[in-house]
Amino acid sequence: MRTPVPEYLQEVIDDLTDIRDGDVADYIPDLATADPERFGIALATVGGRVHVAGDADVEFSIQSVSKPFVYAAALLDRGFERVLDSVGAEPSGEAFDELSLEADSHRPKNPMINAGAITTHQLLLGEHATGEERVARAVEFLSELAGRRLEIDESVKRSELDTADRNLALAHLLRNYRVFSTGAHEVVEGYTAQCSILVTARDLAVMGATLANGGVQPLTGAQVMPGDVARQTLSVMAAAGMYDAAGTWFSGVGIPAKSGVSGGMLGVLPGQVGIGVFSPRLDSHGNSVRGVEACRRLSTDMNLHLMASDAAGSASVRDIEYDDNEIRVVLQGTIQFSGAENIVDRLQHIEPGDTTILFDVRRVDRFLDVGRRMTLEGMRRLRLDGHPIALYDPDQRLPSPDMGDGHFPEQRA
Amino acid sequence: MRTPVPEYLQEVIDDLTDIRDGDVADYIPDLATADPERFGIALATVGGRVHVAGDADVEFSIQSVSKPFVYAAALLDRGFERVLDSVGAEPSGEAFDELSLEADSHRPKNPMINAGAITTHQLLLGEHATGEERVARAVEFLSELAGRRLEIDESVKRSELDTADRNLALAHLLRNYRVFSTGAHEVVEGYTAQCSILVTARDLAVMGATLANGGVQPLTGAQVMPGDVARQTLSVMAAAGMYDAAGTWFSGVGIPAKSGVSGGMLGVLPGQVGIGVFSPRLDSHGNSVRGVEACRRLSTDMNLHLMASDAAGSASVRDIEYDDNEIRVVLQGTIQFSGAENIVDRLQHIEPGDTTILFDVRRVDRFLDVGRRMTLEGMRRLRLDGHPIALYDPDQRLPSPDMGDGHFPEQRA
Amino acid sequence: MRTPVPEYLQEVIDDLTDIRDGDVADYIPDLATADPERFGIALATVGGRVHVAGDADVEFSIQSVSKPFVYAAALLDRGFERVLDSVGAEPSGEAFDELSLEADSHRPKNPMINAGAITTHQLLLGEHATGEERVARAVEFLSELAGRRLEIDESVKRSELDTADRNLALAHLLRNYRVFSTGAHEVVEGYTAQCSILVTARDLAVMGATLANGGVQPLTGAQVMPGDVARQTLSVMAAAGMYDAAGTWFSGVGIPAKSGVSGGMLGVLPGQVGIGVFSPRLDSHGNSVRGVEACRRLSTDMNLHLMASDAAGSASVRDIEYDDNEIRVVLQGTIQFSGAENIVDRLQHIEPGDTTILFDVRRVDRFLDVGRRMTLEGMRRLRLDGHPIALYDPDQRLPSPDMGDGHFPEQRA
Amino acid sequence: MRTPVPEYLQEVIDDLTDIRDGDVADYIPDLATADPERFGIALATVGGRVHVAGDADVEFSIQSVSKPFVYAAALLDRGFERVLDSVGAEPSGEAFDELSLEADSHRPKNPMINAGAITTHQLLLGEHATGEERVARAVEFLSELAGRRLEIDESVKRSELDTADRNLALAHLLRNYRVFSTGAHEVVEGYTAQCSILVTARDLAVMGATLANGGVQPLTGAQVMPGDVARQTLSVMAAAGMYDAAGTWFSGVGIPAKSGVSGGMLGVLPGQVGIGVFSPRLDSHGNSVRGVEACRRLSTDMNLHLMASDAAGSASVRDIEYDDNEIRVVLQGTIQFSGAENIVDRLQHIEPGDTTILFDVRRVDRFLDVGRRMTLEGMRRLRLDGHPIALYDPDQRLPSPDMGDGHFPEQRA
Repeated sequence: MRTPVPEYLQEVIDDLTDIRDGDVADYIPDLATADPERFGIALATVGGRVHVAGDADVEFSIQSVSKPFVYAAALLDRGFERVLDSVGAEPSGEAFDELSLEADSHRPKNPMINAGAITTHQLLLGEHATGEERVARAVEFLSELAGRRLEIDESVKRSELDTADRNLALAHLLRNYRVFSTGAHEVVEGYTAQCSILVTARDLAVMGATLANGGVQPLTGAQVMPGDVARQTLSVMAAAGMYDAAGTWFSGVGIPAKSGVSGGMLGVLPGQVGIGVFSPRLDSHGNSVRGVEACRRLSTDMNLHLMASDAAGSASVRDIEYDDNEIRVVLQGTIQFSGAENIVDRLQHIEPGDTTILFDVRRVDRFLDVGRRMTLEGMRRLRLDGHPIALYDPDQRLPSPDMGDGHFPEQRA
Repeated sequence: MRTPVPEYLQEVIDDLTDIRDGDVADYIPDLATADPERFGIALATVGGRVHVAGDADVEFSIQSVSKPFVYAAALLDRGFERVLDSVGAEPSGEAFDELSLEADSHRPKNPMINAGAITTHQLLLGEHATGEERVARAVEFLSELAGRRLEIDESVKRSELDTADRNLALAHLLRNYRVFSTGAHEVVEGYTAQCSILVTARDLAVMGATLANGGVQPLTGAQVMPGDVARQTLSVMAAAGMYDAAGTWFSGVGIPAKSGVSGGMLGVLPGQVGIGVFSPRLDSHGNSVRGVEACRRLSTDMNLHLMASDAAGSASVRDIEYDDNEIRVVLQGTIQFSGAENIVDRLQHIEPGDTTILFDVRRVDRFLDVGRRMTLEGMRRLRLDGHPIALYDPDQRLPSPDMGDGHFPEQRA
Repeated sequence: MRTPVPEYLQEVIDDLTDIRDGDVADYIPDLATADPERFGIALATVGGRVHVAGDADVEFSIQSVSKPFVYAAALLDRGFERVLDSVGAEPSGEAFDELSLEADSHRPKNPMINAGAITTHQLLLGEHATGEERVARAVEFLSELAGRRLEIDESVKRSELDTADRNLALAHLLRNYRVFSTGAHEVVEGYTAQCSILVTARDLAVMGATLANGGVQPLTGAQVMPGDVARQTLSVMAAAGMYDAAGTWFSGVGIPAKSGVSGGMLGVLPGQVGIGVFSPRLDSHGNSVRGVEACRRLSTDMNLHLMASDAAGSASVRDIEYDDNEIRVVLQGTIQFSGAENIVDRLQHIEPGDTTILFDVRRVDRFLDVGRRMTLEGMRRLRLDGHPIALYDPDQRLPSPDMGDGHFPEQRA
Repeated sequence: MRTPVPEYLQEVIDDLTDIRDGDVADYIPDLATADPERFGIALATVGGRVHVAGDADVEFSIQSVSKPFVYAAALLDRGFERVLDSVGAEPSGEAFDELSLEADSHRPKNPMINAGAITTHQLLLGEHATGEERVARAVEFLSELAGRRLEIDESVKRSELDTADRNLALAHLLRNYRVFSTGAHEVVEGYTAQCSILVTARDLAVMGATLANGGVQPLTGAQVMPGDVARQTLSVMAAAGMYDAAGTWFSGVGIPAKSGVSGGMLGVLPGQVGIGVFSPRLDSHGNSVRGVEACRRLSTDMNLHLMASDAAGSASVRDIEYDDNEIRVVLQGTIQFSGAENIVDRLQHIEPGDTTILFDVRRVDRFLDVGRRMTLEGMRRLRLDGHPIALYDPDQRLPSPDMGDGHFPEQRA
């Protein structure tokens, strides 16, 4: 048999392909000539499986979809404090508030608006980086996320530079407020190059899945960024990614997302999937019309929603088996807070005594740090109740099993 | 042994109790006389376990923390369309934009600001409800969420009515814009009664856990509201609950939350927990100083964050066992989209043939609809490959196992 | 012969009567039933002549045109400092900024918007005035300005109170910010009574001429208010009277003006005329369509514009006649700064010597204080040059002619 | 004797010289090194007399004080319609609204803010003018107003260009919104050159007096611009010249004014005087501290206030003398609307009959067009009453004395 997911994606394409509302961006010739009928969808799981349908392998310039990824790169290169010094993390609210600098600090309100994205680009690498170095860094980082070597579309870049007045205005203004001191034209040229990187819907899905996966690229297995950088990036994308319609998008779709003027759209559901869509016709907010609808469909059909209450909650304790001379506690799944809370709750029912308690963790996928700590605390308390503790962990799922008082469980083979 | 969670909560209290910044709300005598040293924390899981520490059973008036719950009641009573007609779902942005009505429609921007909450209260039950009926409805609904009979503090209510000018201004303005036509004083009196309902930190945790649990009260098991109402409520709370600091709260804490002027604070992590905190000293935004810190601590220590990538992801396929005359597929956990996607991915590796394939779903906690549909689709495809399909489901975890083509798997006992 | 001014006004009416754009205010029945064809114009000079045409003697409720006059009354009753403490003097800018309270102080931005006008009404008389006393004060003051006993239209007042939600909202908000502590409903009832005072276009012209005339009612000769109150009132009316179109009105028409929702319109050109227009159809800003056009016509045709450079400038020195034994300086007109500056300039050409210099001031209309001081300073200097000074002033146009050094000119009979 | 005006100005300087609040602008070295103690005042009358005190002949760069004058030049070069197409005439309100472009049209709100001034500079001469030509035009026009050849301070210009980021931001933004298409850097260089023109307080006073005098330079007698251009310029300056304190300035000082960052300040009272002040220390709004105070003093002491009700009002009819065979009407002063209205009012008292009526206009300074028309209409009506009309006008003060019906008065010698 074949997995039905690609067919499902194809169904979405078939259903939405008749939507021909909106217009291809026309402010530069290289975007205006895009084929408006193109439509591709890709979905990548944190497990590293990628499903595609339609024109998911057609290249287009990434444009504003680059913003969250380069924000992650800046956090990586400069640290949270330095980046937050220059760019805020608040939604900018009204769309017509076109510059969205904070009233007193003159920081751009967030990295998803142009002022913030230009500042973010300027932060790459460090204070003494050259323009070329910053561009090379952006290309390299996005390539790492996509798992293939990405290229800049020089023709798109040149066209955009010809009509870059708004971005030049922002860059001069940011210089004026000393948000940075790099030359306005140099920064805008670099930012425009970043926006001209060619990607596919498949790339976006994989790049998104890396954010969904705590920074680990699910195909290469590389830890492209630490978990806290991925989390901060997703938080800001959730709060500010959809411009002035943040609240409606949140309640109606519930997938943190970012769109670009060339018709690309990125969606990310933490711990689950990255989504990439490509369809060039835009609505009045500048979002891909079919991209928005595709996200809405996936959210509804697949129950992909940040506020879905069903994401977590598998029982972590598969079984507690009482033998004559042993109590066997079988754990399973990913042990995060709710799971560990469930474990220690179950352990409460074990009476004090001297029966050995064996923790069988072979079926555990992973202990998060909080889950590890709470499980070990449970062991420590059982030990205080008189029980010898044993651990059956042939694959070493539970690292450093120190119960906190210097005692370790007896290892079973 | 005893679960360490209450001790952990006590530790948080001990660590934060020295924070004495901020001031008790003083605009009415009944709030001004609150004991500023009070500090209670409660945490309720979607599994129905409640952990408390400190003054978690001290009563205080719920104030603005009532807003999300009454919003849920209004959605329930009047439907999404009617409610969204009168109240938006967007963050209101700037704090000084004190009225936060939308420019054209004059709808309040969201139900978390006073204008929206007053309108939401007015929507309860229906057009012809009296003031008393709306108040009774609010008390009843919040009681259902808390799992106990809540009462109004009449003294607090009377005091607040004496200084209700701002709310009266809002109500008159809403009447002026025809958002509603009920008398301004009647609506404000009802809304003030709603804010005067007495709750404890424990109550808030349980009420929050109900939202986290898709609307099912985890102690009583009652479906207090449908899942989509819980989801909409959480979405709006996430987007607008923390007023003008939404983005910073989002990235820094990542728990949808709502605070009240009496020092109460509610936090909800979908699918996991509800949190209630009570500590009367407020910061300049009107949020409980220790409440904010407690949420931050829980987020950090317990990895409770909406963007945490680790929430989901347990393997749904426990095992595929090849026998001579049968292939046994053992499923486990909650089967949502990522899980089902994983199942059908694994099924792809089964070659066409006539061996019976037995699905053992005893260890499955629950099939979400998307998981059920995808699993059945997998069965259908295997059947088309020649395999007879059997199902071992003594507890009927998989409802209506129609493979979509009129065929059902053979039921095993 | 008859003065052509009324015929000119009639011509304006004839030319504009075909304009039937706009709609009669319909939010209360008493305004909605106004005859939309009514059209009256009146013009009153500071000299006390009144010219009228059309329906200039038809009564209508004064509405917002009462605002500048009651502002003058409040300045009179409470002093500048107290009034400016509660109400600002800045334009409010954007029309949709509906409340227009200052960000920090929460003062209404100016007395021409409703929030400011309600506050101004509340300031009448003093802190302990009752609602009835404030209303009586408004009626009495406006009557004094009009030169006849004005009455309240009780039916209009009652109708407006039925739909006074916006004003009630403002009053509650002002109470909330402690701009005042009088009951919101009492203040709004008083303000509504003030707006329901019946006037005619003729009344408005005369009331405006009183402001134009430094506070002296030009028909009765009564000093209704000091010159600085009239000036402050006109300044605020010029800055804020035309809501968000202040600049365009200023450059295009140049007559400080205020309009009301019943179709009344007031225009004032300092030192020259008061204008009253009545025509009930309103444009989208709520200004009388024909009222606006009539002001524009008068501005263009009559050169009535605040920035007209030709208003002043008559030569103040009619003649300097050299006799054998006397130099006769003949002054004329109103001697303000420019005039006095012209006088002392001319006096410079008189050589030192002992010839008596006689100042003939019979033709002077009036010395402003600055003109009196400068003229006396000129005399003092001539005296220091050796000239005896004499004054021919049978009507005592030059009060207290002390040259500043204890010397007085010799008085001629 | 000598006129006391310069001594009065010196007194103002002496009184205010102890004010040392504020700071010299320090954003470029050439301004930062200005001597903060400099203080000069000049006052020029529409009659062409100039009085000065202190450092009134010290040169400084004109900066923003150039804005109203170049606005006049643009109106002259391009016409009202073209200029108003690109730049509005409304106050910009809030100071922090830093760009002040209109929401829909993206026109700068007025020519007194930088965005508007840059656009105004760009409008000079015509669409095909070069950068140098526009600068030459600005220098030439300001020189004509000052009555002497002005020069650019090249060092100031170069320094300002080094820190011109804010203006470059505005120029790029204006290009982005297609307010103009000239290169951003070219326009900003030209505008900076305009701001670097060297003037003295005396120059500003004379330039202001030209605006006060309906566009006629009072020293050279040249009509530098038509009256309607001067009026529009003053209107916009009154509405928008003092940034966000427009209303307070209006009511407190009442002199349309414009200040510059180098410490220059211009004030204009239509029909009366131009004022120039120079003192480099600035308040937080960027206005010269002593300049503001000097204007306030002049307003108070000299009764120079736009809303002063005493400016006009000299009787226009000096006398009506009844002879046996003639009625002699002696007119005087400047005959504008109020004056002419007064004349026709007086003529009403002449009974019908066949006595010749002789108009003696020797003492008339000037007939405005409205005054001329109304006086001739009075003659026509007297003629219809039977009176032959004669005119004694040896200096031809009354041009084209056609009574409107083809009849002319008999000319007396």
